[in-house]
Amino acid sequence: MSDPTVPAPNGARNYPKGERRRAQIIEAAFTAFGQVGYRNASMVQLAAACGVSRAGLLHHFPTKEALLEAVLAQRELQDDAHFFNSGAAAQAAEDGLEYFAGLIRLLAHNQENPTIVSLFAVLSSEATAPDHPARPYFVARYDRVRREAQTALENLSRRGLLRSHVDAEYLPASLLAMIDGLQVQWLLDPQAIDMPTQLRARLREIIHAEIP
Amino acid sequence: MSDPTVPAPNGARNYPKGERRRAQIIEAAFTAFGQVGYRNASMVQLAAACGVSRAGLLHHFPTKEALLEAVLAQRELQDDAHFFNSGAAAQAAEDGLEYFAGLIRLLAHNQENPTIVSLFAVLSSEATAPDHPARPYFVARYDRVRREAQTALENLSRRGLLRSHVDAEYLPASLLAMIDGLQVQWLLDPQAIDMPTQLRARLREIIHAEIP
Repeated sequence: MSDPTVPAPNGARNYPKGERRRAQIIEAAFTAFGQVGYRNASMVQLAAACGVSRAGLLHHFPTKEALLEAVLAQRELQDDAHFFNSGAAAQAAEDGLEYFAGLIRLLAHNQENPTIVSLFAVLSSEATAPDHPARPYFVARYDRVRREAQTALENLSRRGLLRSHVDAEYLPASLLAMIDGLQVQWLLDPQAIDMPTQLRARLREIIHAEIP
Repeated sequence: MSDPTVPAPNGARNYPKGERRRAQIIEAAFTAFGQVGYRNASMVQLAAACGVSRAGLLHHFPTKEALLEAVLAQRELQDDAHFFNSGAAAQAAEDGLEYFAGLIRLLAHNQENPTIVSLFAVLSSEATAPDHPARPYFVARYDRVRREAQTALENLSRRGLLRSHVDAEYLPASLLAMIDGLQVQWLLDPQAIDMPTQLRARLREIIHAEIP
């Protein structure tokens, strides 16, 4: 399945074969970026990893930036599909317990897919460089996810489910940061870390109710 | 100052000029690794960034791996110096309140030094790749820091300073993860995140006493 939010050049979306090839390229680039990082991956190597010629790759993605954008969009689609039955995190956030239950499901899913975790950990830190092409994407993404978490926490606060000593102002960045940091520790030492269990324990510190 | 735990080849440590040059190289490599990552930095570029010839660089550091080790050791020395008056995190952990006060100081210091933060964020995630030369370093480092945090939390538990709903088993990985994740968010959006304030708020969720 190709990502409808990322237009394919030359009308490739209209042709099943082009679509399939495009999806294969995104899949292979996903792995390559996660293994060696964006900067270190060359279009020549990416073409080889995707099993297409350099010209074939450029037909679908004229620049490495365009390919990166497609890979990041693909990751978000996958996340949202696993994240919540409604398919959208922003919607899930209206019910705080549902939102955090979805986050736990997402971590459980990621823990079966090291490639996704690796891609995200490597790209998000690489993208902190001022000139990195994915920097605007990640700045906007963190801003958005912090706001989603804030919506979920406000819902829990209204329902009286936050513990009394909790200062919710700091929680969106704090929870998101913990999830990111756990990814690195888990990639380095999978036996030492269980990501969904860690998130559940963290939520128990701030929420009265048990997350479903 | 050179790092006494990293032996310099050819007895360079015995000569102040060699020492100074060595320290300058580590300093420049520190910046370069933090900007483009370890994989992407070439010895030719590093030599240029350090203002030495390639031969001059190889005299001090025969491989990029050797240079990386020296940079990581240097970062730890700097950390410990800013971390605690005794100069050692492991010692600080014997007093839980002192340990976490030191961690807050470390984050305040890092927040004035984006190069340190960037180096760590980029290298630690890059090093999650199975074949990365810094992977063993980071696996060992996380294991060690988790144990230090555990010692500090056990001290607080014995003193009755942990809140009753806290399950201390998960806290070492959780706290460390939050600190790591905050670095990425702060690098991407310095206005949105204050790292020491975030850590203080997090500690308030788990500890009765105020951190000095």
